[in-house]
Amino acid sequence: MVDASREPGRETDPKAVCLVSGGMDSAVTLAEAGARGFETYALSFDYGQRARAELDCARAVARSLRASDHRIVRLDLSALGGSALTDDIEVPKGRTPAEISSGVPPTYVPARNTVFLSVALGWAETLGARDLFLGVNAIDYSGYPDCRPEFLAAFEALASTATAQGAESGARFRVQAPLLELSKREIVLRAEELGIDLGLTLSCYDPIETDPIESGPISCGACDACLLRLRGFREAQRSDPLPYADEPATSPRRH
Amino acid sequence: MVDASREPGRETDPKAVCLVSGGMDSAVTLAEAGARGFETYALSFDYGQRARAELDCARAVARSLRASDHRIVRLDLSALGGSALTDDIEVPKGRTPAEISSGVPPTYVPARNTVFLSVALGWAETLGARDLFLGVNAIDYSGYPDCRPEFLAAFEALASTATAQGAESGARFRVQAPLLELSKREIVLRAEELGIDLGLTLSCYDPIETDPIESGPISCGACDACLLRLRGFREAQRSDPLPYADEPATSPRRH
Repeated sequence: MVDASREPGRETDPKAVCLVSGGMDSAVTLAEAGARGFETYALSFDYGQRARAELDCARAVARSLRASDHRIVRLDLSALGGSALTDDIEVPKGRTPAEISSGVPPTYVPARNTVFLSVALGWAETLGARDLFLGVNAIDYSGYPDCRPEFLAAFEALASTATAQGAESGARFRVQAPLLELSKREIVLRAEELGIDLGLTLSCYDPIETDPIESGPISCGACDACLLRLRGFREAQRSDPLPYADEPATSPRRH
Repeated sequence: MVDASREPGRETDPKAVCLVSGGMDSAVTLAEAGARGFETYALSFDYGQRARAELDCARAVARSLRASDHRIVRLDLSALGGSALTDDIEVPKGRTPAEISSGVPPTYVPARNTVFLSVALGWAETLGARDLFLGVNAIDYSGYPDCRPEFLAAFEALASTATAQGAESGARFRVQAPLLELSKREIVLRAEELGIDLGLTLSCYDPIETDPIESGPISCGACDACLLRLRGFREAQRSDPLPYADEPATSPRRH
């Protein structure tokens, strides 16, 4: 928990690059960065993901949470194959919590967080930022290897040797993952405290795309991401503002 | 110097992902990977670089050196700004060897090798490869922080925590940089030993683009990359087959 705005010798808000996917976790992470005194720079990727509506949500989230800038980097990982999120491999549905948390799922995009953090690091160098915010979670992490704390520590070590600032002035970079130890229930409650409109987000790996102006996508309610999200809302005793496929859409979404 | 083909228990040639830029160093690196018994998979990036002819050269090099596959990943780093290789910042010309080797030059693309290696790591996961080949050079490295040996070691450490294979089976990844300790002179001579046609490569940061079928680009002869390359040929007492702007093009280039 580093509040960089309280460091001595800093006169303006320090900058942080925040990875924003359009999902709930990265929205809460972006708001946390702002709450900790950072001027935020949101970064998203158009990486050939099947759920194109994610990027609309990322834009809405960055705007709503007043990021100073939001860039979408095109990175065509689909050229390399290997994931249900970019290829025609089937997204698993209706898995139990035990199945979800065991092993690496087919929705894993090889080295995705490594690639995303590397690009974030490049932008941070350009901006003079030292902090990278990432919405990973070690509790409900769904078996992704690059969501583990040891991965984040290894990336910090790399960042400080990889950059011009690190080489010339010994600058240290920090990877901040404020949700790392939170359950999905706690994330839902933290979003409420931070005043985030979770109706702007999308977690589903396989949403039904509808007219984005009218109603936004309908979440499937059965993929790992939907199941984890819905369990979080249930355990927090809150209702998810998103429409799901197994229930009638109750309210239009705003963008 | 790891010759993976001689490891016990391996029945087919192990696979290696090789970063191929279209330049001389990465061509020699790709040939080295093949000479060490790897089945090679060439990876290039369309990252908004100003010298578009680089990608034509990368294709020609991968074909000529019989890579099993060659993928070009689109990654629009120009969205993030900050380098003379992607922006309208002027490429420095006519610098002395001392100037070239001091400090980080404006042609540095923030975190470029980190990003490229991360994507290579993702492809390696998909292929079941454990080796990543990179044509960096610690002697004539032109001041890029992410060409230093400590960067490569930090990336190897990261790779093994970042991947599904690392998390599940403790697989170790290796970053092989066979040119790390070679001078440009030694690289020119090694290319000759390996039978590489250096006329297929392009090192210039700011080439004059001409009809690629007819003659290929003309190298400027004055940017850091040209000066380092030309010095290498001079010291090796060989002549560079490429045409340069300050001399008449003597022979057409093949692609």
